[in-house]
Amino acid sequence: MGGDYAPNAPLEGIRRAFDEFGDDFCIHLYGDSAVIDSFQIEGLAEERIVKVNTTQVIEMGESPTKAIMRKTDSSISVGLKHLKDDEIDVFISAGNTGAVLVGSMYSVKAAEGIIRPAIATYVPNLKGNYSIMLDVGANPDVKPDVLHQFAILGSLYAKHVLQIQSPQVGLINIGSEPEKGNLVAQAAYSMLSESSKVNFTGNIEGYDIFTGSADVLVCDGFVGNVLLKTAESLYKIFGQKLGDDPFISKFDYQNYGATPILGINKPVLIGHGVSSPEAFSAMIKQAHDIVESGLVEKVKTTFEP
Amino acid sequence: MGGDYAPNAPLEGIRRAFDEFGDDFCIHLYGDSAVIDSFQIEGLAEERIVKVNTTQVIEMGESPTKAIMRKTDSSISVGLKHLKDDEIDVFISAGNTGAVLVGSMYSVKAAEGIIRPAIATYVPNLKGNYSIMLDVGANPDVKPDVLHQFAILGSLYAKHVLQIQSPQVGLINIGSEPEKGNLVAQAAYSMLSESSKVNFTGNIEGYDIFTGSADVLVCDGFVGNVLLKTAESLYKIFGQKLGDDPFISKFDYQNYGATPILGINKPVLIGHGVSSPEAFSAMIKQAHDIVESGLVEKVKTTFEP
Repeated sequence: MGGDYAPNAPLEGIRRAFDEFGDDFCIHLYGDSAVIDSFQIEGLAEERIVKVNTTQVIEMGESPTKAIMRKTDSSISVGLKHLKDDEIDVFISAGNTGAVLVGSMYSVKAAEGIIRPAIATYVPNLKGNYSIMLDVGANPDVKPDVLHQFAILGSLYAKHVLQIQSPQVGLINIGSEPEKGNLVAQAAYSMLSESSKVNFTGNIEGYDIFTGSADVLVCDGFVGNVLLKTAESLYKIFGQKLGDDPFISKFDYQNYGATPILGINKPVLIGHGVSSPEAFSAMIKQAHDIVESGLVEKVKTTFEP
Repeated sequence: MGGDYAPNAPLEGIRRAFDEFGDDFCIHLYGDSAVIDSFQIEGLAEERIVKVNTTQVIEMGESPTKAIMRKTDSSISVGLKHLKDDEIDVFISAGNTGAVLVGSMYSVKAAEGIIRPAIATYVPNLKGNYSIMLDVGANPDVKPDVLHQFAILGSLYAKHVLQIQSPQVGLINIGSEPEKGNLVAQAAYSMLSESSKVNFTGNIEGYDIFTGSADVLVCDGFVGNVLLKTAESLYKIFGQKLGDDPFISKFDYQNYGATPILGINKPVLIGHGVSSPEAFSAMIKQAHDIVESGLVEKVKTTFEP
């Protein structure tokens, strides 16, 4: 039920996913039975698509906490409960971002040892790869030890999902020297420098976010969210004038999928509100890769006290 | 002596400025006499260019505070002293940004009532105008009352220099609702809402920084600096592929000049390190406009206790 083009875009996206790489997974579909019951894919065994009727819908503008508490039969609430209960392996939604986040914290919960889970996003870079940036909105106020955990979480994702052998971590900052930045960034710099758990490459200024100077870009959720949305708007402004360009097209979230929540006990992916069928198919691919990689188990092992 | 193309770019920029709009000003040129002594513009009365020999140069990578303390005969130090002593009306440098900032605080000093001066930058918007964003680097950690002062300073600049009659102020944030953002942004939101000194239009997300939703964009110097540099790098990445485009060309700092320091007792402009002759000419025009507008007097009147 989530996203501006639901339910057609997710349904069409599922069709594509089965068509393109769909040998070894089932999809559980959470939504209004009136909408999803008739959905089927010709030639696909019926049990590969499991339909779960949910009677409530969390709207995009609703207050996340209230919505999660009250709408316990929404697709987000039920899906996350099933995830927690091991009925599914990974949960995807393009619905209310805050509700997916709050619901994940409430039912799936932070992994042991994690102070604050984070939302991560892919950042295309001029080397032709993706870096991963976190946090992009879950934690507008952070302490240095939280940034250190983000660095570890991002490194695990970069290594196991993006297949970057020894991911370089950069701290987003306003100058290259260790003493630059706000108080939190200064303290995080020394913590990251001394950490045995990450390959810290130093501060990354705004100029170098898209150059691939680091595989993991660490920042608080305020800076990350403003950056992400600014880059997205500039992509729209410039991109539509540029047409087909290999670097520009990497900016299109439809090509890489969704933003994972890192540091919780199960994998959850938050899709873009305006997700198209291509975007849903990419999200399913990404979800598949995350499950295959065993990322969540690796996070748990790394952080267990 | 400042900027990557000194001394040729500033000298050529001065030539252009006199040529294009130069009826009512003199230029005081601070630098090594071996370099500037031979500079002249044919047909221009000799006293319109005053040459001041300075024997030291603050390099781009030097520590600002140390450099200002030790190199008292650098072009930056001497120029700022002359500004303080009313020998000149406005000071421009494309040299070490930190040194210009520290030197300004040290000699020109913050205006009475100003908690923290700010560096402001022009932000091109889709309406075809410029907004002004501050702070972009002087204050990585701020309190809400400092953001409120930035809003007032930006409004005065927008009104008197950019000629926007009733400038709208936006707070850069990660959501539109008043309760969004980090603790400082939340407190600043309510302070700005209740302020009688600014027209507060609410929170501005990353998506809307370039749409002209606000004439004055308020943020701390950490967020502003990261944003500014990110936008500049995306301008370079996309812009070089786009060629001539009216919106893109507004991104080029060479077309609008320099970043003013606001909230100090005299006008100071910091140019881009890679400033060209066009950029220097634009800075001189902007400096001229700022002096004509009486901005600094208006700031003093507004903030005097």
